[in-house]
Amino acid sequence: MDLTGKMLIGGQAVPGNRDAIKAINPATDQALEPGYPGGSREHVDQACALAWSAFDSYRETSLEQRAAFLEGIAGQIEALGDALVDRAVAESGLPRPRIQGEVGRTCFQLRTFARTVRAGEWLDVRVDEALPERQPLPRPDLRQRHIALGPVAVFGASNFPLAFSVAGGDTASALAAGCPVIVKAHSAHPGTSELVGQAISRAVAAHDLAPGVFSLLYGSGAEIGIGLVSDPRIKAVGFTGSRSGGVALTQAAQARPEPIPVYAEMSSINPVFLFEHALRNRGPALAEGFVASLNQGAGQFCTNPGLVIAIKGDALDAFLATATQAVQRSPAQTMLTPGIFRAYANGLQALAGNAGARVLGAGLEGAGPNQCQTHLFVASAQDFLREPALQAEIFGSASLVVTCEDAAQVLQVAEHLEGQLTATLHLDEADAQAVRNLLPTLERKAGRILVNGWPTGVEVCDAMVHGGPFPATSDSRSTSVGTAAIARFLRPVCYQNFPDALLPAAIQGANPMALSRLVNGQRQS
Amino acid sequence: MDLTGKMLIGGQAVPGNRDAIKAINPATDQALEPGYPGGSREHVDQACALAWSAFDSYRETSLEQRAAFLEGIAGQIEALGDALVDRAVAESGLPRPRIQGEVGRTCFQLRTFARTVRAGEWLDVRVDEALPERQPLPRPDLRQRHIALGPVAVFGASNFPLAFSVAGGDTASALAAGCPVIVKAHSAHPGTSELVGQAISRAVAAHDLAPGVFSLLYGSGAEIGIGLVSDPRIKAVGFTGSRSGGVALTQAAQARPEPIPVYAEMSSINPVFLFEHALRNRGPALAEGFVASLNQGAGQFCTNPGLVIAIKGDALDAFLATATQAVQRSPAQTMLTPGIFRAYANGLQALAGNAGARVLGAGLEGAGPNQCQTHLFVASAQDFLREPALQAEIFGSASLVVTCEDAAQVLQVAEHLEGQLTATLHLDEADAQAVRNLLPTLERKAGRILVNGWPTGVEVCDAMVHGGPFPATSDSRSTSVGTAAIARFLRPVCYQNFPDALLPAAIQGANPMALSRLVNGQRQS
Repeated sequence: MDLTGKMLIGGQAVPGNRDAIKAINPATDQALEPGYPGGSREHVDQACALAWSAFDSYRETSLEQRAAFLEGIAGQIEALGDALVDRAVAESGLPRPRIQGEVGRTCFQLRTFARTVRAGEWLDVRVDEALPERQPLPRPDLRQRHIALGPVAVFGASNFPLAFSVAGGDTASALAAGCPVIVKAHSAHPGTSELVGQAISRAVAAHDLAPGVFSLLYGSGAEIGIGLVSDPRIKAVGFTGSRSGGVALTQAAQARPEPIPVYAEMSSINPVFLFEHALRNRGPALAEGFVASLNQGAGQFCTNPGLVIAIKGDALDAFLATATQAVQRSPAQTMLTPGIFRAYANGLQALAGNAGARVLGAGLEGAGPNQCQTHLFVASAQDFLREPALQAEIFGSASLVVTCEDAAQVLQVAEHLEGQLTATLHLDEADAQAVRNLLPTLERKAGRILVNGWPTGVEVCDAMVHGGPFPATSDSRSTSVGTAAIARFLRPVCYQNFPDALLPAAIQGANPMALSRLVNGQRQS
Repeated sequence: MDLTGKMLIGGQAVPGNRDAIKAINPATDQALEPGYPGGSREHVDQACALAWSAFDSYRETSLEQRAAFLEGIAGQIEALGDALVDRAVAESGLPRPRIQGEVGRTCFQLRTFARTVRAGEWLDVRVDEALPERQPLPRPDLRQRHIALGPVAVFGASNFPLAFSVAGGDTASALAAGCPVIVKAHSAHPGTSELVGQAISRAVAAHDLAPGVFSLLYGSGAEIGIGLVSDPRIKAVGFTGSRSGGVALTQAAQARPEPIPVYAEMSSINPVFLFEHALRNRGPALAEGFVASLNQGAGQFCTNPGLVIAIKGDALDAFLATATQAVQRSPAQTMLTPGIFRAYANGLQALAGNAGARVLGAGLEGAGPNQCQTHLFVASAQDFLREPALQAEIFGSASLVVTCEDAAQVLQVAEHLEGQLTATLHLDEADAQAVRNLLPTLERKAGRILVNGWPTGVEVCDAMVHGGPFPATSDSRSTSVGTAAIARFLRPVCYQNFPDALLPAAIQGANPMALSRLVNGQRQS
């Protein structure tokens, strides 16, 4: 489990030939060994050639073989033990229990996709049997299944060095769909990436899969990132990161001779609506819960509550007073990278300099480098509606409270919002009508709507939607968390009048895989 | 049922204020009254404003109400009777039985979507119940349903003035999903479009729906087409037409501040593979079947068999001899428009002038204007692999036979193909192994693979895929024919910890709509 500083191309350790990057421990600003020389276009070509040659065999592995492979990856990651946790803590500045929890989440996610693969619902089998006597024309026998799109390029996130990175949700769902994966490692945690990449490579070998099923590359966005997205053998892209990064990848993917889908999860400020009765009955408790959610992971979550919306009045004043005190008590926390810390500081400065916004309170200053100081701002709805800049995401523990005159203005603010991953409602029973008036707007704006909770914390399950209209994601029809994420990497194929022996097992007449099917319009489970 | 030459904006007849177009009867080159003045951006704005205001109520109509509305449209179209058939025949030059069949197909399609709406599988309901005792963290209650994307712009096709036009598959599936629809009428059949638009408007009124659920606009691509695709209230686009048209709309949709999905069905040459034993055992019969398929609708089908691939030898020679004779006997047919006829003539000229291709035979010349003369060409695989121009679609009854040295070269030709709507295999039992060697490639290339039939004829059913990798369509994950087409206009929304009374009925605890659901990972039908 030694770190080599090398890429993994089809299971082989390959040194890069461009400038090396080293991870920075953000808690100390110290560089961490080893250096990771970046790869070049020839490495992209090698990885894509291997992925392409692995595709047809990998996409037709049995459900059991593919599920066991995903479980094998989870086992290999767990076997890394403290070496993985130590390295991820050093590279991310995140607390040890958080990283331990993330290892657990990553492995749970892989095993959940193994269960999904075995259940086979994702094949979406549809059978319309021949009707030779139908008038005026007979109906042929038609059968549909879904197959994998092709090799997928995955760009991991900085803020979840495990669960949204090399073996994170994009990789797990693409592998589950039957797609080989090439990961471009995030430069913030190259060592964590190498360890996890080695674990996946060991699972590929242990399960006798073609080596091209997985590769891990290091290097620049311009050379490796655009190189991957532009390669004709790459058929889809998974990305978690900034709005500018996601938009750039989407444009590159659209400029190809054959455009491909990009699933970019980008930018969301996750509005929290405080309804009248809830605010009056438990404003201070809501304020404590809000600041706790705001401070989680130094606010470096895509579901961080960056916006609070409520109607002016005594109850809101009480909420703000308690929230401001809680913010002022908040200890500083180390951010993920010096770059993220600088962007946070710049975002705070821009908001503080905006005539429409006013600082309500700031948290404790930190002693070391890259310390996130929690901030709470307030703006009137009128200013919020006028100033697009007040809607910009600040990645970190900063939030803006928007004060409204009345319910009509709350609705106006909601309609004014860009697309979001989440919308949160704090309500009591007596707020039901006010909620009903707002829900249609929120359904149009957000992928997940939650009641009396906080948006941080994204469950890995069948019903989860971690997605939403642009700019939350590049494709509101999809989710990047939960088992429905597998659908992003599939397409339907219809087989007409095939002899049974030539059909894939999933759609053969006798249903040998015992799949849930839609047969002549009837669901057969 | 008089033709007014006016647009229909939310049920109101509105005259355009740009140059008028008139349909041309392609059998006579005579212009048909009335003229249809084009609309301008203000009309786009009016239609979008009405569609937007109708969206929230229309998407929450009950399944029964929406299904009855679709059936109501079918009834209104049938009530148009001969007036519709007469006008469509005059505008398209298509034979009367073909138009009568297309009226039937259009109404069948609307009723099929009514059945799909009622069954409710498209809601894709997923429920993960709360696990308050789970360690280390409790699981909240999470419920997912799908909702409509928003107002959809539909661009009808020239070649199916009913089934792929104003009330065609795109409109039917978008309305089924809960999306208001704005159709830009195809300039080739404005009168047919107006009649069908009036039928839809009557159904909107009869079912007490918001008038903005449907509008029909006339005008130029630059003004009305790009205007619609660029309007922020339009959330998806359905298009059937040329590759250049589809690519232009996709680029306009991607250039918006909020990019939206475009489902463009564009270009396909629908390769037909003749395997050794099938060719030897029934070459002449295959040749007759092939030319019959080639001549259907003057070859003006997106599934027209524009490419035949087989291994050289006596059996192929016999096939070619019979096919050439059949082509030479083929009567000329009137094409849809003078523009399509010119494009066909240009395509023939380009292919005839290509050093790699040789004319095998030509059909009978026609007497009137715009007559499609069937053409059969042949090229060696070597030339086909070298000349991208030999892969260009010629819209009309023209096809190219590619002769291969051996099975390896057949595979090479298959790998060289662009994305296709269909691939057709003619095979006997003894060809099974050769088919198996080719299938993985064809699954990657085509949306539908068919055995011992012809690609023309696209069944409207659950299992159909009328889609495929670029340039067949802009989105290989979708189909534009069959009930799965509804999925193009939906997105998932997740509801977390909602009180039951605030949940949409589809995902309430007691399952009052009796929907098939995935509950805690188990399918409950």
